[in-house]
Amino acid sequence: METISENRCYGGTQGVYRHPSHSTNCSMTFGLFMPEEAQHAPVPVLWYLSGLTCTHENAMVKAGAQAWAAEQGIALVFPDTSPRGADVADDPGYDLGKGAGFYVNATQDPWAPHYQMWDYVAEELPRIITANFNVDEDRQSITGHSMGGHGALTLAMGLPGRFRSVSAFAPICHPTAGEWGRKQLLAYLGPDEDMWTPHDATLMMQAEGLDIPLLVDTGSNDQFLDHLMPEALANAVMARRIPAQLRLQKGYDHSYFFVSTFMEDHVAFHAEALYS
Amino acid sequence: METISENRCYGGTQGVYRHPSHSTNCSMTFGLFMPEEAQHAPVPVLWYLSGLTCTHENAMVKAGAQAWAAEQGIALVFPDTSPRGADVADDPGYDLGKGAGFYVNATQDPWAPHYQMWDYVAEELPRIITANFNVDEDRQSITGHSMGGHGALTLAMGLPGRFRSVSAFAPICHPTAGEWGRKQLLAYLGPDEDMWTPHDATLMMQAEGLDIPLLVDTGSNDQFLDHLMPEALANAVMARRIPAQLRLQKGYDHSYFFVSTFMEDHVAFHAEALYS
Repeated sequence: METISENRCYGGTQGVYRHPSHSTNCSMTFGLFMPEEAQHAPVPVLWYLSGLTCTHENAMVKAGAQAWAAEQGIALVFPDTSPRGADVADDPGYDLGKGAGFYVNATQDPWAPHYQMWDYVAEELPRIITANFNVDEDRQSITGHSMGGHGALTLAMGLPGRFRSVSAFAPICHPTAGEWGRKQLLAYLGPDEDMWTPHDATLMMQAEGLDIPLLVDTGSNDQFLDHLMPEALANAVMARRIPAQLRLQKGYDHSYFFVSTFMEDHVAFHAEALYS
Repeated sequence: METISENRCYGGTQGVYRHPSHSTNCSMTFGLFMPEEAQHAPVPVLWYLSGLTCTHENAMVKAGAQAWAAEQGIALVFPDTSPRGADVADDPGYDLGKGAGFYVNATQDPWAPHYQMWDYVAEELPRIITANFNVDEDRQSITGHSMGGHGALTLAMGLPGRFRSVSAFAPICHPTAGEWGRKQLLAYLGPDEDMWTPHDATLMMQAEGLDIPLLVDTGSNDQFLDHLMPEALANAVMARRIPAQLRLQKGYDHSYFFVSTFMEDHVAFHAEALYS
């Protein structure tokens, strides 16, 4: 593992690291904020999965999460959103290929050789972080924005017992039914829609439910509400009587100005679960 | 004035606006955060001047200042750092020309026709903001980072009575003596070094002093300490017995991770002056 940069930040360290990945079969870069407390004892971890077009860097510099993570003594992981490199398949659209891995393991050509983002985020990167940093693998939570909110929700439901809590900012809630989802799931997973189910938060909520605390914020002025379909997830959550906080925030849009506004709430929400 | 974007943010609005400028003789863009309180009454204003290579956007998305400004009910202005446009003179170096206006009124060719950043930030933009937004022009404070810290300090000392308080993050403290300064002051103002004095915080502190609260933070691991010369300003401040907080923050560097870490302190510092 190679250190790209380390900056002192809120008493801790904001690092950027690169490593060869056997899941994605390429070099992967991630951001990691370690709070000061990690110098003395293992700290809990909050995963932040980013949205379409993002790298590890966007949330790391724009979400303002380190302020609150430092206050709570929590580490933050910022994975990339896709494999990278000249030999990695791509698509001219912003919403497929690089920057748009959708947190699935692709089974179709030309994506399968590198687009194994579920395995990368669910298995490989956690092992790397646990092996190299002073984190407590028994205390993990997960959040994300847009495509990353989709990833957070599906990982939380697909890996029961892994996370203590899950939240999302403007998540894609029902990708098997929307423009942000059908195109990508078809490309990565092929035409058998049964294979798409584990990657649809609404379908997973209907089928599996969720037994950890859930918080979802979406802006009432989000320009992508038709793609996100918060109503589908809300319906599934209510129908299953799953305890959750689903909030539509008046006037907010899809930007990082929305994410940063509610970041304090989300980190505090996870801290409650991570320290209980 | 044209609205480029408006995003809801911490209960207020983060806007970006563009307008023709008679000072810089080109179109200028600025960011403005207006807190919720401005819907009911004029709010105080904190100016944030950015550093080399920045536009209006860097601090607006990376400094995390809106969180604290919203808490205190303070507006934030993020001006650009130079004139812009195809017909504006530039230099291949990152530290001269576009992105490097140094907050002076250039008198030399080819810079003089557009590089009038002192007038823009000190006169024109305040009038535009006062005319178009619900701000209280009698309650203004100023801060900045690096070249913008230099701008904040020299504006505060050059415009006595204008600001209630001044702070800076890793400011260029003594540009007439350093690599970040001599080159630019020579280019913009010509070889008569007497003309440079109003644009050197250390010389201004020696000559004029300062009668408003002053807070300066610099990282002990700042990679540009030799260019910043915090010791020169500290010497001048102490020699004149000017009340001030000058802090060297252990382990921090020149990045926005440093700026964002101490932004809460700076906004609180200004709030105390703005609401007293």
